[in-house]
Amino acid sequence: TQRASYVVGTGKKEFDVRSIGHLPGIQDIHIVSDDYKLVSRKWKVNRTRLDLGDGVVIGEGTFSIMAGPCSIESEEQIERTVTHLLDNDVKIMRGGVYKPRSSPYSFRGMGLDGLKMFYDICRQNGIKIITEVMQPSQIADMLDYVDVFQVGARNTQNFNLLDELGKVDKPVMIKRGLSGTLDELLQSAEYVFSGGNEKILLCERGIRTYETASRNTLDLNAVPILKEKSHLPVIVDPSHGIGIREFVEPMALAGVMAGADGIIVEVHDTPEEAASDGQQTLNFDEASRLYQRMRQAYQLREEF
Amino acid sequence: TQRASYVVGTGKKEFDVRSIGHLPGIQDIHIVSDDYKLVSRKWKVNRTRLDLGDGVVIGEGTFSIMAGPCSIESEEQIERTVTHLLDNDVKIMRGGVYKPRSSPYSFRGMGLDGLKMFYDICRQNGIKIITEVMQPSQIADMLDYVDVFQVGARNTQNFNLLDELGKVDKPVMIKRGLSGTLDELLQSAEYVFSGGNEKILLCERGIRTYETASRNTLDLNAVPILKEKSHLPVIVDPSHGIGIREFVEPMALAGVMAGADGIIVEVHDTPEEAASDGQQTLNFDEASRLYQRMRQAYQLREEF
Amino acid sequence: TQRASYVVGTGKKEFDVRSIGHLPGIQDIHIVSDDYKLVSRKWKVNRTRLDLGDGVVIGEGTFSIMAGPCSIESEEQIERTVTHLLDNDVKIMRGGVYKPRSSPYSFRGMGLDGLKMFYDICRQNGIKIITEVMQPSQIADMLDYVDVFQVGARNTQNFNLLDELGKVDKPVMIKRGLSGTLDELLQSAEYVFSGGNEKILLCERGIRTYETASRNTLDLNAVPILKEKSHLPVIVDPSHGIGIREFVEPMALAGVMAGADGIIVEVHDTPEEAASDGQQTLNFDEASRLYQRMRQAYQLREEF
Amino acid sequence: TQRASYVVGTGKKEFDVRSIGHLPGIQDIHIVSDDYKLVSRKWKVNRTRLDLGDGVVIGEGTFSIMAGPCSIESEEQIERTVTHLLDNDVKIMRGGVYKPRSSPYSFRGMGLDGLKMFYDICRQNGIKIITEVMQPSQIADMLDYVDVFQVGARNTQNFNLLDELGKVDKPVMIKRGLSGTLDELLQSAEYVFSGGNEKILLCERGIRTYETASRNTLDLNAVPILKEKSHLPVIVDPSHGIGIREFVEPMALAGVMAGADGIIVEVHDTPEEAASDGQQTLNFDEASRLYQRMRQAYQLREEF
Repeated sequence: TQRASYVVGTGKKEFDVRSIGHLPGIQDIHIVSDDYKLVSRKWKVNRTRLDLGDGVVIGEGTFSIMAGPCSIESEEQIERTVTHLLDNDVKIMRGGVYKPRSSPYSFRGMGLDGLKMFYDICRQNGIKIITEVMQPSQIADMLDYVDVFQVGARNTQNFNLLDELGKVDKPVMIKRGLSGTLDELLQSAEYVFSGGNEKILLCERGIRTYETASRNTLDLNAVPILKEKSHLPVIVDPSHGIGIREFVEPMALAGVMAGADGIIVEVHDTPEEAASDGQQTLNFDEASRLYQRMRQAYQLREEF
Repeated sequence: TQRASYVVGTGKKEFDVRSIGHLPGIQDIHIVSDDYKLVSRKWKVNRTRLDLGDGVVIGEGTFSIMAGPCSIESEEQIERTVTHLLDNDVKIMRGGVYKPRSSPYSFRGMGLDGLKMFYDICRQNGIKIITEVMQPSQIADMLDYVDVFQVGARNTQNFNLLDELGKVDKPVMIKRGLSGTLDELLQSAEYVFSGGNEKILLCERGIRTYETASRNTLDLNAVPILKEKSHLPVIVDPSHGIGIREFVEPMALAGVMAGADGIIVEVHDTPEEAASDGQQTLNFDEASRLYQRMRQAYQLREEF
Repeated sequence: TQRASYVVGTGKKEFDVRSIGHLPGIQDIHIVSDDYKLVSRKWKVNRTRLDLGDGVVIGEGTFSIMAGPCSIESEEQIERTVTHLLDNDVKIMRGGVYKPRSSPYSFRGMGLDGLKMFYDICRQNGIKIITEVMQPSQIADMLDYVDVFQVGARNTQNFNLLDELGKVDKPVMIKRGLSGTLDELLQSAEYVFSGGNEKILLCERGIRTYETASRNTLDLNAVPILKEKSHLPVIVDPSHGIGIREFVEPMALAGVMAGADGIIVEVHDTPEEAASDGQQTLNFDEASRLYQRMRQAYQLREEF
Repeated sequence: TQRASYVVGTGKKEFDVRSIGHLPGIQDIHIVSDDYKLVSRKWKVNRTRLDLGDGVVIGEGTFSIMAGPCSIESEEQIERTVTHLLDNDVKIMRGGVYKPRSSPYSFRGMGLDGLKMFYDICRQNGIKIITEVMQPSQIADMLDYVDVFQVGARNTQNFNLLDELGKVDKPVMIKRGLSGTLDELLQSAEYVFSGGNEKILLCERGIRTYETASRNTLDLNAVPILKEKSHLPVIVDPSHGIGIREFVEPMALAGVMAGADGIIVEVHDTPEEAASDGQQTLNFDEASRLYQRMRQAYQLREEF
């Protein structure tokens, strides 16, 4: 089963590993020197692949596209987006129903009712969904209506949330913090993994720097470094990474070439009217072109 | 009462304010152009003072010292610290019982039992306590054993937590995020304030920069800027701000001179043995000297 | 000729442009609202192409590879590198003879004699060279032995150097500052251009952030943004951008896909023995594979 | 004399120091493990004091104020400023005649003629001057008209300039780079010192971060850290450090309390009309009040 039991020793001194190895219930022992252990490639060399069911797989050997609006707004919006995704053979739809907003006066999402509607329409069409969870108390309610939980950049170090997500049997995509280091991202993944949930995705979405010409600074260095350090799949979010609609495409393609296992991108039928993030959201035509180009870039990468 | 009702309009266009002013139930109207409104000095010119009871007041016209260990460790530790604080006429003790830790394998605090012990000893001695709350589900349990809730740097934008803290009648100190802007800090305060809780403290604790010679970069520019923009008291945390024990004193004194309403500092009877943050923690002698000097600096500032 | 005369007006108020247009000697008038004017696409819509002679062209419609060691070390090193470049049809060799070093006790390069040797060998083999100039007094001596002057990241805002380079008739590649904004890079280019030298290349080489897992944070967002704002070619330096040899390839490929007009990369026959930057330098086999893959990626991009 | 000869060994391995000690001409040997050696307190425990003549001393045991305009503009401006400084017993006037400007179209200063006028008026009044030098070729011309050379934040790693300043017998104040580390600042000082010029001042002037509420982020952590690592005096520039006129005073006072040996501050008789930096420049009344308060703060610090 997915819920293995781990005994993670963190002793600072040398000790005789055999004193553990013969204890009853111990199946295997690994010695890992990183601060994160279970998510390290020193623990598990083979790369993790996540099977979402219905033939939708994320990780080594595949390239995943997750597309959809920043915020779920209406049934019509979901249906239009699903049609667009089906037309383009995209299997995972993104969309937020709980929106973290800097200002208390901004739109905070449709909540659980929106999620149920979102999930139902997608399931009927064979589309998997990824959506953000903001706090532990939401997990139980959301669990049956989510294929992948997303942990947002402001919650990367919400350790209580990570602890609780370690107890569920659904994949979790953890976004890098606003100014999070790669080591912190891996340690956050370690929270989830050490809780028993091995189904984890890492997501590079840009970091905060002094540069104001872009919304964030997309740090594609993160891709090869994370893939070297960890066995977990790495997703790139070019929409937040640059924050400017007309430049999402080149950054998505760059992410593919840097080695990403997938791209998550904001798409809306009328970006100008989106409830949030319209300035970095592609319309359906732009998105269709992007999917095709990303697949070509991925194919070239695989041929290397 | 503390729980006022606010109608905060966020219309983007000009409108006739008289159309609101004569509505029943409307007592007063303010027009504030900042993203944050209620915490702005344009809303409230007079500076906020927080009365913790028993003559302990924070804000304009006073200088507050909050001292104690990073983590609550034992009854003996609390008692030794309380004695030290009483000897030095310090009225507020800090100490964590829920510890946010980057790694899931680090000490995470004594929890609620530790908090009750911490609170009981302090109350018997007339000491007020400030301690960190990490998630909404902890608030109810903690409420009777806390004088000031602290929101840590990793939770500055945990909006669900802020929403819930907006509903309680206890002061809340919000630390600036790891790489949070001052505007974001004020907007986080706006979450709490707009929920009905006006008892808020802001805390500058250093930001993340490229410089590695110090743990964080203490941004004392924040002090005059926050005090200009907002009517809320501003506290400085030199312990996290520089992260090096021997330099805590000059940075604390600099914080006083920059205009801080108070200083929060890590103190332990044997810093070398502290469960966490020992490298930036003062011993009792160092702390006593610091309290005295801070008071002298504050007195000089008041004479200006 | 290359040395045009520009009259750049920077009046802040509206004025009647006809009062200038009819003055003797005025050929044409443009009104540009950016802080930089001559390097803006609002001044010149068509993208700049630089012709280095002998069929070596940089810019729109071509993809340029510049490869070679961080430091020029010996005649043998140059010859081995030239052979490698000829084998791979690479037309531009990079190599430093004046090395900016943080510590005064580090190797500072072979100087002018090294440059003459470098240039002679390359010219005999039809290879163009790019090398760093550190101060105005070096320009005259270097002029006859350089195909492209490089301005390093520590000199991006050395305005005297930029002024002097504005007076020469050789291309100049300006690297983005250690923590330079894109606007500052464009304004530095404006120094050179407004001095009369229109032959300018911009280079993204990574910026300084809090992340320490890589040497710098390669900001590929810079590529589409610079190409939108300016008509100048944009080169990417993945070697400095990530600083880790095994990850130079994915970042170079990402740079191509982001839209770079060329890649500058550190290559050495025995990186382990390089006088500087060995940890980020490819050996000849790694480099040959990279050239081929970059060309394939560029070809795919052109087909889009 | 000031021009000592140093033999700085940088061997990476252990060796028998006696093999050097008995060589002719070797007077003394120090082993220093920092990247910077001569400026380290491990080399020289006693703090450096700089004597500018006429009783003007900078460093341990004194507190220095350097005040004046960003740019030297006219004879009248200098005279009014000198009168103000004399009235307030300030002995060092700052003022730029060569101005580094991001845009080539901005005012670049009065140049050498302005410097001579500036120096003459000050010398007649017993005032010392500090002014920025931008490139090596200016040094010889400026030498007779300067009391302290300033190296600006964009030239902190202009190693040729530092090399040349190592050869003159005038004090040099090196500003920290725009995003320079403290180690880099000390290594830049090492360039000057190892060239033979021991008369060096370090200056913290704020660093570039993501925060846009202030012009720079004044990093007062730098003060105790630099004073621990080095024997050189440390000056704080609150004008550039926060960049907002009304907050220069609290930041200056914070700098004093953090342990600065002096403060350099922008002052102008009519800041609104200053040729540059007016938004961060104090008028004479504000400045007079600041001098008095800084001296009181320094006196308190000394009493500790």
